[in-house]
Amino acid sequence: MKTPTKTQFLSPEDIAYIVQTKGMKKTLEELTDYITQDFLRWDAFEKSARIANHTSEGVIELMPISDKDYYTFKYVNGHPKNTHFGLPTVMAFGVLAAMNTGMPELISELTLTTALRTAGTSVMAARVLARKNSTSMAIIGNGAQSEFQALAFHYLLGIKELRLFDIDVAATDKCIKNLSHLPVRLVPCRSIAEAVFGADIITTITADKTNATILTPEMIQPGVHINGVGGDCPGKTELHVDILLRSSLFVEYEPQTRIEGELQQLPENFAVTEIRKVLQGSAKGRTHNDQVTIFDSVGFALEDYSSLRYMRDAAASLGLIHSIALIPDLINPKDLYRLIGSSSQKLVKVK
Amino acid sequence: MKTPTKTQFLSPEDIAYIVQTKGMKKTLEELTDYITQDFLRWDAFEKSARIANHTSEGVIELMPISDKDYYTFKYVNGHPKNTHFGLPTVMAFGVLAAMNTGMPELISELTLTTALRTAGTSVMAARVLARKNSTSMAIIGNGAQSEFQALAFHYLLGIKELRLFDIDVAATDKCIKNLSHLPVRLVPCRSIAEAVFGADIITTITADKTNATILTPEMIQPGVHINGVGGDCPGKTELHVDILLRSSLFVEYEPQTRIEGELQQLPENFAVTEIRKVLQGSAKGRTHNDQVTIFDSVGFALEDYSSLRYMRDAAASLGLIHSIALIPDLINPKDLYRLIGSSSQKLVKVK
Repeated sequence: MKTPTKTQFLSPEDIAYIVQTKGMKKTLEELTDYITQDFLRWDAFEKSARIANHTSEGVIELMPISDKDYYTFKYVNGHPKNTHFGLPTVMAFGVLAAMNTGMPELISELTLTTALRTAGTSVMAARVLARKNSTSMAIIGNGAQSEFQALAFHYLLGIKELRLFDIDVAATDKCIKNLSHLPVRLVPCRSIAEAVFGADIITTITADKTNATILTPEMIQPGVHINGVGGDCPGKTELHVDILLRSSLFVEYEPQTRIEGELQQLPENFAVTEIRKVLQGSAKGRTHNDQVTIFDSVGFALEDYSSLRYMRDAAASLGLIHSIALIPDLINPKDLYRLIGSSSQKLVKVK
Repeated sequence: MKTPTKTQFLSPEDIAYIVQTKGMKKTLEELTDYITQDFLRWDAFEKSARIANHTSEGVIELMPISDKDYYTFKYVNGHPKNTHFGLPTVMAFGVLAAMNTGMPELISELTLTTALRTAGTSVMAARVLARKNSTSMAIIGNGAQSEFQALAFHYLLGIKELRLFDIDVAATDKCIKNLSHLPVRLVPCRSIAEAVFGADIITTITADKTNATILTPEMIQPGVHINGVGGDCPGKTELHVDILLRSSLFVEYEPQTRIEGELQQLPENFAVTEIRKVLQGSAKGRTHNDQVTIFDSVGFALEDYSSLRYMRDAAASLGLIHSIALIPDLINPKDLYRLIGSSSQKLVKVK
């Protein structure tokens, strides 16, 4: 039997269509469930830290992972100055392939999807780390991913007040406009200190590729959960080291977070807990109401594996299936050369 | 100024069109020149060994590389049993991105292109390693890549006799049929020993993922150049270790070949020469006519970097430019969320 060689393709518009059709709440619920289920079967995956190529302007990374059935990888960049060129600071796409043949079955945009899955992963962690009945969240950094964090924490965790700060006031205005349809109190703030004061959860999601100190120790009240999203590559951190030293740290994949997370500021033997252990029940999350917890999130390949599977399933359920010719369709797979002789008729030339 | 977010796309048919239009000889000449020029500026590149995920059936690999201007990576699998499913054993695609923004500017098929660039790289090495006036080459393994090796060595190195062997006689027949237009003597052989006897160059390009011994010491005559292409991942070798011990070994990128090449059979301190040093003039290639030389080729990311640049330039020169929407086109790059609200009108649904 001949296996198809067409690769399914999902564009940003396709992903937007899936979200529109299912609704944001249901999409985030289902996606977070896919991610959580995959974290629960952690040992089924062949994992590695991502490989990064750096320049002074930014970083480009590849994030592969596989289990016995599927292989996925994500391509993702981080270029803080990109907004000057009209480009997102983070752009991504990914591929899902069959492990038994290597056939790339799906190529999908992951810029929009990464925003969704990062928010879903943040909620997955906050469910076991934030205080029960948390209702207020500060979001420091109101860029491209901020609305997705807001929506996920509102729909999935019951957050009813969002305290917003960005050094770019226009970003905060945009965020408020985009969230104005929610039954949520939206509070624009003039400083980080004002934003975090009284918040049950603090989400930091800034873009600068520097060792910044977005949060300093005097801002941190007992019992707060910090959802640290923006410190995610070497030389890019957001939290003062003294905050880390006084908190319980939770990570996705320890070897990667030691290189890329807030954790890069700490000695190699500083104890952290992989969040999957808390989900699996083999380690404790929050143990008391005064504890400061930090989810030092850098983004892990497993989350993209879950997302690619989810978006493929969602697209199939909505009949959204188009494809591109990435792999040659050969009558005899040992006869690659025939393509040179036989393709002139098939050629479609598009300007 | 807004940077375009369309990603150029080249399918296998597009690459075939480029080869047909330019001609195989000119394509191989130009591509080999791009590869050679990039090997000459070796130190300009940020290099790493590829990352591989293995199963019992095969392997999937990512091969990234960058210089100050461009980042490229290749996705490539190796699944020897794929022909049973009507799929090539090796399938590949790659991406070229701008280093200063991370924008993926080109996604291209690399199955056909890999066959071309591997042949070009083999010739690049043979030019400095094979005996001058070599006229006869044996090809052991007459699968998908064999014709490309034959064509490259004929057009670029003057090979006039090809001695062909494969355990699958149908593969040899196919190879002979595909090469019948060439002014070359094509000799089907009933054994490896018969094929290699008297050949100036031996190309091994078999697919089995085992430690095979395609060539044994008694087959090797003084002065021969072995172009070892099929031993290219851990546990996949083609040459008896005693051949290696009596030969001069040349490699692409030493850290990678120690893991993946024939070199995996030898102690870690066994001396080898990176082929770029011979090209640059800082090391010697062949020094006398009785020397047995081996190019222990595993395929290096730099060759794909060169190939992606070459195919993009070739496509542009032929007006062959189509694109896919892999990255969202945002009016305000900080407003990714707007995509959810604004995309329903833009959606093109293709079955």
